[in-house]
Amino acid sequence: MKTARELGLIPEGRLEPGPGNAITDVAGVAVGHRSLRGEGLFTGVTAIVAHPGDLFRVKPRAAVEVVNGFGKSAGLMQVAELGTIETPILLTNTFGVAACTEALIRRAIAANPAIGRKTSTVNALVCECNDGSINDIQALGVTPADAEAALDAARPGPVEQGAVGAGSGMTAFGFKAGIGTASRLMRIGKRDFMLGTLVLANFGAAGDLVLPDGRRPDPRVPASPERGSVIVVMATDLPLGDRQLQRVARRGGAGLARLGAFWGHGSGDVVLCFTTADPVEHDPAAPVAMQQRLSDSYIDIAFRAAAETTQEAVLNALCAAPATPARSGRIYPALTDWLKESSAA
Amino acid sequence: MKTARELGLIPEGRLEPGPGNAITDVAGVAVGHRSLRGEGLFTGVTAIVAHPGDLFRVKPRAAVEVVNGFGKSAGLMQVAELGTIETPILLTNTFGVAACTEALIRRAIAANPAIGRKTSTVNALVCECNDGSINDIQALGVTPADAEAALDAARPGPVEQGAVGAGSGMTAFGFKAGIGTASRLMRIGKRDFMLGTLVLANFGAAGDLVLPDGRRPDPRVPASPERGSVIVVMATDLPLGDRQLQRVARRGGAGLARLGAFWGHGSGDVVLCFTTADPVEHDPAAPVAMQQRLSDSYIDIAFRAAAETTQEAVLNALCAAPATPARSGRIYPALTDWLKESSAA
Amino acid sequence: MKTARELGLIPEGRLEPGPGNAITDVAGVAVGHRSLRGEGLFTGVTAIVAHPGDLFRVKPRAAVEVVNGFGKSAGLMQVAELGTIETPILLTNTFGVAACTEALIRRAIAANPAIGRKTSTVNALVCECNDGSINDIQALGVTPADAEAALDAARPGPVEQGAVGAGSGMTAFGFKAGIGTASRLMRIGKRDFMLGTLVLANFGAAGDLVLPDGRRPDPRVPASPERGSVIVVMATDLPLGDRQLQRVARRGGAGLARLGAFWGHGSGDVVLCFTTADPVEHDPAAPVAMQQRLSDSYIDIAFRAAAETTQEAVLNALCAAPATPARSGRIYPALTDWLKESSAA
Amino acid sequence: MKTARELGLIPEGRLEPGPGNAITDVAGVAVGHRSLRGEGLFTGVTAIVAHPGDLFRVKPRAAVEVVNGFGKSAGLMQVAELGTIETPILLTNTFGVAACTEALIRRAIAANPAIGRKTSTVNALVCECNDGSINDIQALGVTPADAEAALDAARPGPVEQGAVGAGSGMTAFGFKAGIGTASRLMRIGKRDFMLGTLVLANFGAAGDLVLPDGRRPDPRVPASPERGSVIVVMATDLPLGDRQLQRVARRGGAGLARLGAFWGHGSGDVVLCFTTADPVEHDPAAPVAMQQRLSDSYIDIAFRAAAETTQEAVLNALCAAPATPARSGRIYPALTDWLKESSAA
Repeated sequence: MKTARELGLIPEGRLEPGPGNAITDVAGVAVGHRSLRGEGLFTGVTAIVAHPGDLFRVKPRAAVEVVNGFGKSAGLMQVAELGTIETPILLTNTFGVAACTEALIRRAIAANPAIGRKTSTVNALVCECNDGSINDIQALGVTPADAEAALDAARPGPVEQGAVGAGSGMTAFGFKAGIGTASRLMRIGKRDFMLGTLVLANFGAAGDLVLPDGRRPDPRVPASPERGSVIVVMATDLPLGDRQLQRVARRGGAGLARLGAFWGHGSGDVVLCFTTADPVEHDPAAPVAMQQRLSDSYIDIAFRAAAETTQEAVLNALCAAPATPARSGRIYPALTDWLKESSAA
Repeated sequence: MKTARELGLIPEGRLEPGPGNAITDVAGVAVGHRSLRGEGLFTGVTAIVAHPGDLFRVKPRAAVEVVNGFGKSAGLMQVAELGTIETPILLTNTFGVAACTEALIRRAIAANPAIGRKTSTVNALVCECNDGSINDIQALGVTPADAEAALDAARPGPVEQGAVGAGSGMTAFGFKAGIGTASRLMRIGKRDFMLGTLVLANFGAAGDLVLPDGRRPDPRVPASPERGSVIVVMATDLPLGDRQLQRVARRGGAGLARLGAFWGHGSGDVVLCFTTADPVEHDPAAPVAMQQRLSDSYIDIAFRAAAETTQEAVLNALCAAPATPARSGRIYPALTDWLKESSAA
Repeated sequence: MKTARELGLIPEGRLEPGPGNAITDVAGVAVGHRSLRGEGLFTGVTAIVAHPGDLFRVKPRAAVEVVNGFGKSAGLMQVAELGTIETPILLTNTFGVAACTEALIRRAIAANPAIGRKTSTVNALVCECNDGSINDIQALGVTPADAEAALDAARPGPVEQGAVGAGSGMTAFGFKAGIGTASRLMRIGKRDFMLGTLVLANFGAAGDLVLPDGRRPDPRVPASPERGSVIVVMATDLPLGDRQLQRVARRGGAGLARLGAFWGHGSGDVVLCFTTADPVEHDPAAPVAMQQRLSDSYIDIAFRAAAETTQEAVLNALCAAPATPARSGRIYPALTDWLKESSAA
Repeated sequence: MKTARELGLIPEGRLEPGPGNAITDVAGVAVGHRSLRGEGLFTGVTAIVAHPGDLFRVKPRAAVEVVNGFGKSAGLMQVAELGTIETPILLTNTFGVAACTEALIRRAIAANPAIGRKTSTVNALVCECNDGSINDIQALGVTPADAEAALDAARPGPVEQGAVGAGSGMTAFGFKAGIGTASRLMRIGKRDFMLGTLVLANFGAAGDLVLPDGRRPDPRVPASPERGSVIVVMATDLPLGDRQLQRVARRGGAGLARLGAFWGHGSGDVVLCFTTADPVEHDPAAPVAMQQRLSDSYIDIAFRAAAETTQEAVLNALCAAPATPARSGRIYPALTDWLKESSAA
């Protein structure tokens, strides 16, 4: 299986990918999948773990950008208010949010028995897309145990892409899609920083996809109103402040638009961006801590990285996913099949 | 049991209450409680049902104002984007959100089998406060069946207040609190309109409460950082547009501030406002519908009603709740006890 | 001079342009330019007038989306709160905002002597970009009289594009740019609606421009940090509600991103969208008015039109502007020159 | 002239005022007034200067909260995006904004000749209220020279309050009002911090004012729809992050609500909050700087200070302003006159 870059879909940009071209290029970040199959089920859970420690005690700073809010994600309000995350990020199908939430709460309590009693409660962070075309979503097939399995599977290093984990039943632009990832190396002053993005791609109307070279792949499926969604999770080690994180997250929307998307009405398009730099301690040692802050004079490089990785991660999701039948029987084609036909013609 | 108004706590305002001084004064609105007791449980669920029909098919228009977003409510993002609600509103404790979400999804699918398959998924709307001081919140005691029981109990007419339903284990300003409600009649032109508010009051630091006459009741409990929350749900039959609904919701924050609150860091203070006027059809008969719009020249009356009912509803919650022991053994006193002592002194 | 469409830069889209492919395809909308030249001045004012009546008395409903807020536009806060505009929209250079504001206030008072005395004041709406590379912006050369001249010049019908009015000294992606416009016809049910967009294009780093066919024109100018801006003004006759107008405005950002922009840090990227349907009366005849509302089921067509017209309007601005010297002496090239060289090669 | 505190209107709070009970208790902050009188003019300009250096080169970090956006302030969009201010803050009447903007631009260019040419332009920050009941606002009587005079008059130390500078023609709750200020000392850990607030008070319907002891002063003026506004400027030396500054600013709205305001439709209620800690350099020496960050565990003290100082500053404005005739001939009474009558009765 080849990536979009290996297939020649990614033009030379101003920024180079990291060693794995994956969100896990950001040190400490781990990804795990749990794929569910059988009896109408074609769905799953994907876990993104921001660092290997106790996230409730050492909270990465984060921001959220709601590009289009037709969605049912959990936990975003508190991220918007406080600018931190305190659990892993779980991705799943729309009706799996409650099960994933329960799993995150139980894990957090197990590690921190004071939660909800002597301290505040915990903000479970779960984002979703609707995979009802391929998966029997009404079966509410995702269980807390599945969420735990995805968490347990989380590893640094290579990330499996395509129809895996939460991406199992997702489609984009009329093609089979799912999980994709990409990264960019950013040299600022004499230091190297990384920004990596993972997408759960389930958006875009058939016929709207635009490849970087201007081609418009036709999935030859009937046009239908967009009812998908896309979740974009960005990780970086750049020392960004609250406002900067939010501005970087916003540029995920630019990456989506470059693919031909117009952020359709029925699509829940959400971007999360967290940094591993200078996390916030739940029980701080002192009232005032020191924190690094990148000068805004250099932030355009992070904006570029955000837009580029979002675009490439979606293309990677499309390139990694094989043709898959919908519950209705029709087939969601693979983008790679179209590419082969297109080059043969 | 007397209301705040009967106890002389509410000054004559410019607006008069509706006949029941309750959110159910808005025609069609129903409220139901499910209270859970036993084995450490002292919690519950409260349901607010905007109209007696199928909410997924006929969606009330609504807006949300996040006064302080330290909270875990579900469904707010989509309300903010689309300006409609499509399920009943459930209130519960923080760790009951997932169970309530599941119940709302299952009910919606039962009534509309196309949900998630041929149509969009459904946006379950669940708001919460942390009752962990009184209730064993870690037990995750609220089940989908409890949520269904609250929904089944929903009735128009008088609303039980105080330590009932979701309000069972809630406290405010160091006193026992919980569910409260109030309403205002608004005469605009020659028509009468109603705005009713229901609160789940669980906020405010001990010693901060200010009564309308300037008195500051002391609950004689140890000061502790505010980790509460307050959910304010407003219903009206005013024909308000999207932007107007949001502006009315924002005035809930003014009502809270008049009580002495400063919207503490650890408090999830959320206001929802819906109108029963001109709801949105899931399958509209025509591309363009007609909708009434109140002139902004008259909107101050709705702003007043929003602030006044929020303030009075919290006072009603405080006046209706009896002294209750915390899990730690200490007692959360009743405001009415303080009032008696205060008048005796 | 040829448009981007005539030069083959616009692919066949799902939507067709209106008869003039201009913002003035929306009935009642007029555009006027005042161009300033001489003694270092290379700047001007462009006026967009939403309807031919008294805008203070009959206010079009409108929304604003701040894509990136590094800018000095005036009047946006009130549009965001109230959802109406009550003056023409003036575009000018950054330091011309005060002069344009004064002109709008004086005109409004002349027509409505109660302004500021017996009624509220008036919200002058002025947006800007920095043309300091070409124009001697420090001279503060724009006067209230220039703003009045642009207002007096406003006409329906064809819109002059390129280096004219406020667009005189603007550049984009390293090429000379300025004013551009485009429109789309939207058939919904059996009715035809129009959405037209006018841009003041002064954004984008050299080398970032992507044409719809994937080509990346190189202006052969030194790379420099983006310090431009872009103002996007959309007019429509669609009966959109407040929330819908805001969502349509947001899609202007998608149009910009399709051109290769990532909404740079130093760029003030602002989108205004107004509808001529069901304006708001300053002195309403009755407390409640009727208003049409497009069903959200049809809103994707407006989202497409917003993204497509923004993209095409910028390309039109680039295609209409001739090569122009900067104050430094170097030349900002014309995109059409690059296109000629490119096709000759 | 006595302050509200000296008149017994301020209850003992949890926080004590600073030495001057003024915004100038924050080290480095200066305030200046320019009052205009004669020929129908009863208006002016007030300048708040965040530090004595070059604000364009060393930018204080800041945030803005729009409580109700019916207003015409200039410069807020960029503060919201970038989180910094780069000019003094000028307060004036609604139609004086353009003149004040021009003065700030000219001063900034004089100090930094590269502005608009080799660097970005400058974001002039001007907030306003409508004093048209007392002042002949249509005369556009404020000139750039008046703005410069206010800037030149800026001093640390005691702040003149009441009908002075921009407060000359302002009224609140039917009483004469204008400029007021207050401050709070905050002890966090072993360090002392300060938060000071200055208000331009011109809001509140007659009869709505609530004193801290519950009394409701009646100005005995005809009720009229609120068309005022209030500008709240907070300064602090607390090391707050971007998000924290915004949350502190929001609590200004709580202070206003405690006075009986409901943030009326026609009122432009805006809060600015800046910190003198860790300002941002226009030309940073290195890509990454160090910045202090207060732990959120301590932020409630700043929230309290924000609400308390806003409330007290408005009361100070009311207590400092003498009875003043409106342009219509009727008198706006002084709150102190009501207090005397009230205590005599």
